[in-house]
Amino acid sequence: MPYWFTERHTPTRGLTFQVEKNLYQEKSPYQILDIVETQDFGLMMLLDGIIMVTEKDEFVYHEMLSHPALFTHSNPQKVLIIGGGDGGTLKQVLLHPSVEKAVLVEIDEMVVNASKRFFPKLATAFEHPKAEVRIEDGIAYLKRSENEFDIILIDSTDPVGPAEGLFHKEFYADCYKALKQNGILTIQSESPWIPDLQPIIRQANQDLKSLFPLVIPYTAAIQTYQAGLWLFQMASKKHHPLNEIDSSKHTGFNFRYYNPELHKGCFALPQFIKELLA
Amino acid sequence: MPYWFTERHTPTRGLTFQVEKNLYQEKSPYQILDIVETQDFGLMMLLDGIIMVTEKDEFVYHEMLSHPALFTHSNPQKVLIIGGGDGGTLKQVLLHPSVEKAVLVEIDEMVVNASKRFFPKLATAFEHPKAEVRIEDGIAYLKRSENEFDIILIDSTDPVGPAEGLFHKEFYADCYKALKQNGILTIQSESPWIPDLQPIIRQANQDLKSLFPLVIPYTAAIQTYQAGLWLFQMASKKHHPLNEIDSSKHTGFNFRYYNPELHKGCFALPQFIKELLA
Repeated sequence: MPYWFTERHTPTRGLTFQVEKNLYQEKSPYQILDIVETQDFGLMMLLDGIIMVTEKDEFVYHEMLSHPALFTHSNPQKVLIIGGGDGGTLKQVLLHPSVEKAVLVEIDEMVVNASKRFFPKLATAFEHPKAEVRIEDGIAYLKRSENEFDIILIDSTDPVGPAEGLFHKEFYADCYKALKQNGILTIQSESPWIPDLQPIIRQANQDLKSLFPLVIPYTAAIQTYQAGLWLFQMASKKHHPLNEIDSSKHTGFNFRYYNPELHKGCFALPQFIKELLA
Repeated sequence: MPYWFTERHTPTRGLTFQVEKNLYQEKSPYQILDIVETQDFGLMMLLDGIIMVTEKDEFVYHEMLSHPALFTHSNPQKVLIIGGGDGGTLKQVLLHPSVEKAVLVEIDEMVVNASKRFFPKLATAFEHPKAEVRIEDGIAYLKRSENEFDIILIDSTDPVGPAEGLFHKEFYADCYKALKQNGILTIQSESPWIPDLQPIIRQANQDLKSLFPLVIPYTAAIQTYQAGLWLFQMASKKHHPLNEIDSSKHTGFNFRYYNPELHKGCFALPQFIKELLA
């Protein structure tokens, strides 16, 4: 029987949609996972009741978390993804011919297994010969790594529950240490429209600025995430996204959101975000 | 008694928010107007149950409908606004020192009166010495006008009900005729995320392209409009927004969304919108 579900973005607002069918529910030591079928977004994965991935608009988040950093770096060979157990970011990363190895470190095997079953188009990435999938705590993994990666992408859930430690300055410092001298870190950085998230966004920006010479935030329009507008923050040791783009590298991709013009345009921030991060 | 309201964006999805209080309701020959108080968006005006203006985020729509065209034109003196009875667009237009006259043509006096009562910060624009407010049908008004305006802004409701005629090619042709030889038309052009709106967006783009030498679409993130992403289309007889911006003109504004970098960045379209308009 179809029913209405509302993901609340504050106690008094949210995104409402009709669920046609509950397909699957499982509980891990970390979180509760639901797979539901919807009219508007196709299959949807929720973690603790928050939309993570939908068939119809996953491309926005996954393209925009990965491509800006990978096209900014002159030769990204080794990439680390923390979180991202659905495989969507890994899939985009592996489209880059320069990438020789992509390591995905997901704490919760349940997410990987559910993606294999319900999002096979994303989960094909797990079988790619250049992919290494590790089920372990990304924070612990990073502590052991030094001068190893060209790109690190933080593909985390919101800063409550298992992902909370991925929003700490100590974690960003470990990312810095694990990056090579020209390395780039990109984090998903929540919705700038939601008042309670604004201090978290600002803190992340300040923490990253204290560690990296270049911190460049950018936005993407993600209709199934809070308020439809999402922030990312790129923290770079050397490369600047607006200086170093080589558009000849864009051929052979089948972009649906990202493109060379947007690579520049996405860094033009609305004034209220500039002021939030000033 | 607070209650939950959902504005449906398709039959099976919508934006849900808590209404603290109903403040006002009135019915005109054209539409039903509601003023409600909300926790998240402050006071809100709805027309036929669709959010038009909210205290907390009206600035996005009003800045982004007006400033891109007004900063693209080298010397905008006479501006016409069709619709926009809340006064928000008029207020932004009148911030431009070059503007000598701004005519607002709103078919429904009820909207103007409700704005005066509930949105006085927007409605102050009605009293500006350079403003002329006319309560009449914008389509009929435009038919009588020729070679008169530097800028025309279509600040309409959705393409059902009273605004339906504002989405026709014949209307755009009348806009072309009413514009001076360097004139610019900007229309609000709905949400590109909503499947049922995509053919309307494409048709408007094709109609404008058949009339104007330059048609340049751009986006803004409007959290209270459908799916959080809004399209505008600028149709210009001569000036191109990316060529002619004079940033020295930006001083003295108190922008909250628009800014000089965004003037360029907003025209970088996500790939799925480029393909929709190809």
